[in-house]
Amino acid sequence: KRLGFPEVVFGENKTSAQLIGIAERMSAHTSRLLMTRVDAAKAEQITACVPGLHYHAEACMLTGFGPAPKPERGGYIAVVCAGTSDLRVAQEAAVTLEMMGSRVERITDVGVAGIHRLFARLELIREADVVIAIAGMEGALPSVLGGLVAKPLIAVPTSIGYGTGLNGLIALGAMLNGCAPGVTVVNIDNGFGAAYAAASIHKQTRRET
Amino acid sequence: KRLGFPEVVFGENKTSAQLIGIAERMSAHTSRLLMTRVDAAKAEQITACVPGLHYHAEACMLTGFGPAPKPERGGYIAVVCAGTSDLRVAQEAAVTLEMMGSRVERITDVGVAGIHRLFARLELIREADVVIAIAGMEGALPSVLGGLVAKPLIAVPTSIGYGTGLNGLIALGAMLNGCAPGVTVVNIDNGFGAAYAAASIHKQTRRET
Amino acid sequence: KRLGFPEVVFGENKTSAQLIGIAERMSAHTSRLLMTRVDAAKAEQITACVPGLHYHAEACMLTGFGPAPKPERGGYIAVVCAGTSDLRVAQEAAVTLEMMGSRVERITDVGVAGIHRLFARLELIREADVVIAIAGMEGALPSVLGGLVAKPLIAVPTSIGYGTGLNGLIALGAMLNGCAPGVTVVNIDNGFGAAYAAASIHKQTRRET
Amino acid sequence: KRLGFPEVVFGENKTSAQLIGIAERMSAHTSRLLMTRVDAAKAEQITACVPGLHYHAEACMLTGFGPAPKPERGGYIAVVCAGTSDLRVAQEAAVTLEMMGSRVERITDVGVAGIHRLFARLELIREADVVIAIAGMEGALPSVLGGLVAKPLIAVPTSIGYGTGLNGLIALGAMLNGCAPGVTVVNIDNGFGAAYAAASIHKQTRRET
Amino acid sequence: KRLGFPEVVFGENKTSAQLIGIAERMSAHTSRLLMTRVDAAKAEQITACVPGLHYHAEACMLTGFGPAPKPERGGYIAVVCAGTSDLRVAQEAAVTLEMMGSRVERITDVGVAGIHRLFARLELIREADVVIAIAGMEGALPSVLGGLVAKPLIAVPTSIGYGTGLNGLIALGAMLNGCAPGVTVVNIDNGFGAAYAAASIHKQTRRET
Amino acid sequence: KRLGFPEVVFGENKTSAQLIGIAERMSAHTSRLLMTRVDAAKAEQITACVPGLHYHAEACMLTGFGPAPKPERGGYIAVVCAGTSDLRVAQEAAVTLEMMGSRVERITDVGVAGIHRLFARLELIREADVVIAIAGMEGALPSVLGGLVAKPLIAVPTSIGYGTGLNGLIALGAMLNGCAPGVTVVNIDNGFGAAYAAASIHKQTRRET
Amino acid sequence: KRLGFPEVVFGENKTSAQLIGIAERMSAHTSRLLMTRVDAAKAEQITACVPGLHYHAEACMLTGFGPAPKPERGGYIAVVCAGTSDLRVAQEAAVTLEMMGSRVERITDVGVAGIHRLFARLELIREADVVIAIAGMEGALPSVLGGLVAKPLIAVPTSIGYGTGLNGLIALGAMLNGCAPGVTVVNIDNGFGAAYAAASIHKQTRRET
Amino acid sequence: KRLGFPEVVFGENKTSAQLIGIAERMSAHTSRLLMTRVDAAKAEQITACVPGLHYHAEACMLTGFGPAPKPERGGYIAVVCAGTSDLRVAQEAAVTLEMMGSRVERITDVGVAGIHRLFARLELIREADVVIAIAGMEGALPSVLGGLVAKPLIAVPTSIGYGTGLNGLIALGAMLNGCAPGVTVVNIDNGFGAAYAAASIHKQTRRET
Ligand SMILES: Nc1ncnc2c1ncn2[C@@H]1O[C@H](COP(=O)(O)O)[C@@H](O)[C@H]1O
Ligand SMILES: Nc1ncnc2c1ncn2[C@@H]1O[C@H](COP(=O)(O)O)[C@@H](O)[C@H]1O
Ligand SMILES: Nc1ncnc2c1ncn2[C@@H]1O[C@H](COP(=O)(O)O)[C@@H](O)[C@H]1O
Ligand SMILES: Nc1ncnc2c1ncn2[C@@H]1O[C@H](COP(=O)(O)O)[C@@H](O)[C@H]1O
Ligand SMILES: [Mg+2]
Ligand SMILES: [Mg+2]
Ligand SMILES: [Mg+2]
Ligand SMILES: [Mg+2]
Ligand SMILES: [Mg+2]
Ligand SMILES: [Mg+2]
Ligand SMILES: [Mg+2]
Ligand SMILES: [Mg+2]
Repeated sequence: KRLGFPEVVFGENKTSAQLIGIAERMSAHTSRLLMTRVDAAKAEQITACVPGLHYHAEACMLTGFGPAPKPERGGYIAVVCAGTSDLRVAQEAAVTLEMMGSRVERITDVGVAGIHRLFARLELIREADVVIAIAGMEGALPSVLGGLVAKPLIAVPTSIGYGTGLNGLIALGAMLNGCAPGVTVVNIDNGFGAAYAAASIHKQTRRET
Repeated sequence: KRLGFPEVVFGENKTSAQLIGIAERMSAHTSRLLMTRVDAAKAEQITACVPGLHYHAEACMLTGFGPAPKPERGGYIAVVCAGTSDLRVAQEAAVTLEMMGSRVERITDVGVAGIHRLFARLELIREADVVIAIAGMEGALPSVLGGLVAKPLIAVPTSIGYGTGLNGLIALGAMLNGCAPGVTVVNIDNGFGAAYAAASIHKQTRRET
Repeated sequence: KRLGFPEVVFGENKTSAQLIGIAERMSAHTSRLLMTRVDAAKAEQITACVPGLHYHAEACMLTGFGPAPKPERGGYIAVVCAGTSDLRVAQEAAVTLEMMGSRVERITDVGVAGIHRLFARLELIREADVVIAIAGMEGALPSVLGGLVAKPLIAVPTSIGYGTGLNGLIALGAMLNGCAPGVTVVNIDNGFGAAYAAASIHKQTRRET
Repeated sequence: KRLGFPEVVFGENKTSAQLIGIAERMSAHTSRLLMTRVDAAKAEQITACVPGLHYHAEACMLTGFGPAPKPERGGYIAVVCAGTSDLRVAQEAAVTLEMMGSRVERITDVGVAGIHRLFARLELIREADVVIAIAGMEGALPSVLGGLVAKPLIAVPTSIGYGTGLNGLIALGAMLNGCAPGVTVVNIDNGFGAAYAAASIHKQTRRET
Repeated sequence: KRLGFPEVVFGENKTSAQLIGIAERMSAHTSRLLMTRVDAAKAEQITACVPGLHYHAEACMLTGFGPAPKPERGGYIAVVCAGTSDLRVAQEAAVTLEMMGSRVERITDVGVAGIHRLFARLELIREADVVIAIAGMEGALPSVLGGLVAKPLIAVPTSIGYGTGLNGLIALGAMLNGCAPGVTVVNIDNGFGAAYAAASIHKQTRRET
Repeated sequence: KRLGFPEVVFGENKTSAQLIGIAERMSAHTSRLLMTRVDAAKAEQITACVPGLHYHAEACMLTGFGPAPKPERGGYIAVVCAGTSDLRVAQEAAVTLEMMGSRVERITDVGVAGIHRLFARLELIREADVVIAIAGMEGALPSVLGGLVAKPLIAVPTSIGYGTGLNGLIALGAMLNGCAPGVTVVNIDNGFGAAYAAASIHKQTRRET
Repeated sequence: KRLGFPEVVFGENKTSAQLIGIAERMSAHTSRLLMTRVDAAKAEQITACVPGLHYHAEACMLTGFGPAPKPERGGYIAVVCAGTSDLRVAQEAAVTLEMMGSRVERITDVGVAGIHRLFARLELIREADVVIAIAGMEGALPSVLGGLVAKPLIAVPTSIGYGTGLNGLIALGAMLNGCAPGVTVVNIDNGFGAAYAAASIHKQTRRET
Repeated sequence: KRLGFPEVVFGENKTSAQLIGIAERMSAHTSRLLMTRVDAAKAEQITACVPGLHYHAEACMLTGFGPAPKPERGGYIAVVCAGTSDLRVAQEAAVTLEMMGSRVERITDVGVAGIHRLFARLELIREADVVIAIAGMEGALPSVLGGLVAKPLIAVPTSIGYGTGLNGLIALGAMLNGCAPGVTVVNIDNGFGAAYAAASIHKQTRRET
């Protein structure tokens, strides 16, 4: 595996039966499993059949098969988002990072329309090794952060919004066109991908520790 | 005319000859003329033929036929934009407002990626009767301002940018989906339209003066 | 809050349980609450748990916690729409305005394909301090009104239509490209946002009263 | 030929040399030729080489090889448009109709933002056998006319506009979604196609005369 | 009403209760009612409450309140489509035409991929006063017919197809760009609109009868 | 090289100087060179410098360095298109095929709006080993051919058209959604790619000869 | 039928009752029937009523009415795809090919992000007469294969993916723009169409055997 | 400046005169200047006026005012692209990196359609601290690399291609949907932005050295 990372299963288009089958097969030869995009109903069926799995409800993820891994390196990654609507994606990023051995600081409720709340948390964000900024609607958070923080910054657009939000395409476009240089972007709602990239940077940053 | 406003001519798809003809005809019965989207080459030809016209180079506008009107009411309108690229649209808004009798404060170089510059000018913006916020690329300025200013706020997306900016469609989308409530939007690059709307609000606000 | 306005909750993507929680928490320290996009089923559950809330069925809104506020300023705002399909959005705008202390005149059934009905109501529209024009399908109503009324005019496209209506994108595009100057636009179906902007203009217009 | 109509050549992507060749070949066996989308420069070169061709500058069309045909049937077709920007398309429709033997009434400067000008010409439009309504920008004219006129009505969107006008796609969409029933639509800027369809209706309407 | 036509109700976004209310109100002062886009479940509820309505299952339409009208003029309109998938739209057009007093010939199963079947029915199509051509997927039928038939021809794209068919947008685009001149187009799936336009042509064509 | 085919150079975004350099370098070790999308001006400069190149003006291609290859296998490929506008693409396909050792029959002027002309050439098309069908605008030719011909059929959309043709996207969409099964498609204007695919089928079909 | 192929029914938009009716009618005069896009629930109802049909669950297809046909020619077709998500489309292609008398080799789990797995199966792919490459998400498999295999290669984009995948449009676009020449493409998820085209090539390739 | 980086000027929409003015002003207080997107003609005019600037023709960049900086940290960044068409973007990235103090290895001519060339350079890519992968057309390079390299990987789509390439949107979409996790993306043609992000990672990775 790239980065010594556990098996990852994309749960969205698979049935409970399929996911149970996969989990059972993997339990034999893997000690770290990650299933993303598993809703509560499926999770209940799967955990009833396969021992050793833990459900993270807000993240819609299952992890297994041992206790949560300890941080494997110094420093931390800041996962920043605007509000309750973006929380699923933020938690998907955070849980993935923790499974990859990175410590996480969660900073929520800091949308650009209430910028004083963002300033109140700025020091914590600035001290991180990598920043993940998550935003839906107009997707402005990474642009604003990009001007305030001198660290690698990964932006995640979310599908939150309505009407002309186009299921996240506007937020994605805004992030790709942001005027703060050096921001990179992943697919809409792809908290997992952002975390994977952040962990690969973090691992390298702290390779001596 | 709505609002007692002078004749307005949209110059973009018309030849110098056509614009000269229109200006001559109007000079007979109008004392306030506004021609938008006239480039320098056309302007030179037109002012050489029709007396009493003044060219505003940055705004790409011609005005006539008398001296610039004095402010006709108290208070002012803030025209806010990020940088040099958005200046043509900002000046189109400002000159239109002045022709309609409103005083203007121009606030430039306040893009969201350098937010301290925006804070340095915030009092001036907050005291305005109406705010026009102009931005290209990710179009985030109105969202940020919307959270800081309690006045009518009109957003103008510009076509500045490249690649996935889609000639202003992303900025437009971001403004329509902004999380600060009460922002209204006009067409891409439409500084004139924003000014017209702002003046109609301003006129009403100060009708006693 | 901007404009001294009550708390607003966007109800669409939240469960009844979440909305009950929010309403209970807010009942302690707010006397004016507005919940938008709450369907009848959710509303029934919420009002059964939280006292002091009133459901506006046509608007799909809950308001609380006191009696409906009295108009706080003179004049009124005209909320104009074409027909029954646009009524939800129109009522969302009207109830929001009333909660913000503005008086409202509702003018419905005045689509552009039956223009004599529009003329029959024209005086009432012309006397308003601000006009909100709501239209789906081809979105032509604001263009026609813009030529007839000399007041601030906010257009709301709706997602009503089918086939190439593209869920309101055509109506939005038509409003942004309308040939009557000075019309400003909000997001598709965003009656709340239009009302918020209109109230901020109205408040300023009547600040002496 | 369908409808006994002359040869038609689409001039846009062909060189002067190619068009001269085509015109010479056709002059031998056709007495009615129509070349559309020929700009002034090409027209000058072609008429210098091929005798019997007449250039319609506003319509960007060449016709030949005899005198303009007389009306071949009673009644007339109304070609209605908003302003100077749509004139090329309107004239393309009008000249095509005249070459097909239909009488034309041209009604211009009747955009929906100045609806009293439209009412001033309404009788002339209502008496026509077929109406062609041409509009760019928000494309609202056919919707309004559709509610006022009980005749076959063909709508032509034009590419006039900027920003979100999307080169006529918004006007096209508005016309397809118009709330007046029975309006049919042709391609953007396709004055020729609208005229061809109108003539085929006209011919049938007046077949006894 | 334009063309002396009965009331028409667009049933799609209305509940059975609303449609029953409308039908009852109209039964008092109208002898010809047309309700489009009413599915079988709603139709059953409505006909159980309101006497005098007839349900056309394939067309998803309700008509009332008397016996089907007799043809009111000579000649007929050809409604042509490719196959079973386009039948709902074809029947919507046919029933509308019959309610407007025009005789209809239905020609189905003549898609362009089996062109010999189209040739077998060509005489019947050519003798019609107006032709309505309905097609989904690649939408080629009107182009082919346009080269074979010298009558007014109205094209209706349908939303039938999958993948890149984009719910009818490709068929619509193909029809607007067809190389046979004189074809006009209505909105996706809009059999009613095509019939309305065709009837207005038919009525005029046969005004002596 | 795949299929023992000569070097191919895509000429469009390269300067004459660059293309001369490439041609000179290749002349040393290749006896068959193909340069696509070379306009007349560039071709003149290149042939003046590099001996042994032949310019195919209609195809906008340069070939070298020996005499045109003889057909290397039996049978032939039919290259079918509607008219003069699609000729550049058709000739690009034909010259490519000849350079790859396949005999070509060119069938032009057979658009679907004049279907009798297509029938007149049908036997020649049916006898081919592979058919390439090229069409712009509504892109209907492959659908019609697909129902008439039982051979591998490759469709090429062209960018010919205007307005809603969207530079070939509608023709592409129509070809992908055609109701005749078994048609495959290449990129817009990609005559070279269609020829390459056809030659690979042809070579295999005739591998015994 | 083209290619002497059995009747094919597109099952997606038809009810069980309709499909039973069609199957019964066809059982009288056809010995080879293919029904595509039939889900498990429908299949159960149909096979309960119509004897002689076999359900291919992974392919969502019904075939009848005799035993599976034997390969009718030498050689085979390689059906290649990346993973479990693309399997339905791959099996649709494979079953169709077998019904048309071609032998199939299925190669799965060879996505471009694990390219060594692709190399492990390369010989089997290279020996095929035709290759069908199926991929969702970024759709890169055909480009990579195109550089490694000198056989006719047909690409099928699938709708697998999320966010900006746009239901297969990105994969389709990537396949049309691939830098390996000679790849042809069918509609999104159209395994049937790819198989049909491949069989027509295969039949011709092996016509002597 | 973030990261102690020199002033950067975006040259594309500015005139030579404007750029000369900016360069002169900056020469007073900056020792490292970077101007991107400056074509050869502008560069000649600027270097004639402002001493101390060096033009990088392939990158279309100007740098100043001292000698090129030495690498300021160990390790290197791999800039990987497919061919000559993507070179401008690749060089923009490389020159930017060098100006920021990072060593660069350039790896070109490794498109996915000739995958053996990519394997020949794989060790050099794997040893880098960060990888920048640049690709136009189908944009598949980052997906393939993502499966082969365990380092932070930034993808840059380019506008190279034609027809359905949509000026880089397909390549962008493919990169966002790639099946190798952990790839992040920047705007189309944005070599500068990718380099800026890569340098910020590199700086952090090597902070002890
Ligand atoms: N119907 C609505 N349309 C658009 N924005 C709304 C609507 N209702 C509430 N909002 C906004 O959403 C914010 C609350 O969002 P939330 O915290 O998710 O409940 C409010 O401050 C409003 O600005
Ligand atoms: N007209 C064309 N259309 C599409 N692809 C082409 C064309 N001409 C050349 N190519 C491809 O472009 C490659 C050469 O590209 P280049 O190295 O940029 O000259 C060839 O191997 C062909 O596969
Ligand atoms: N899965 C499929 N994808 C695309 N086309 C199909 C598919 N299955 C059947 N078809 C086509 O649909 C036609 C039958 O359509 P229908 O008459 O509606 O059942 C057949 O002749 C095939 O060409
Ligand atoms: N080639 C480029 N692509 C994207 N952004 C750039 C590029 N060159 C400069 N920039 C950004 O543009 C800003 C300067 O813009 P300006 O003030 O318009 O010259 C810099 O701070 C960079 O962040
Ligand atoms: Mg946000
Ligand atoms: Mg900005
Ligand atoms: Mg309306
Ligand atoms: Mg207009
Ligand atoms: Mg069809
Ligand atoms: Mg064609
Ligand atoms: Mg894949
Ligand atoms: Mg590439």
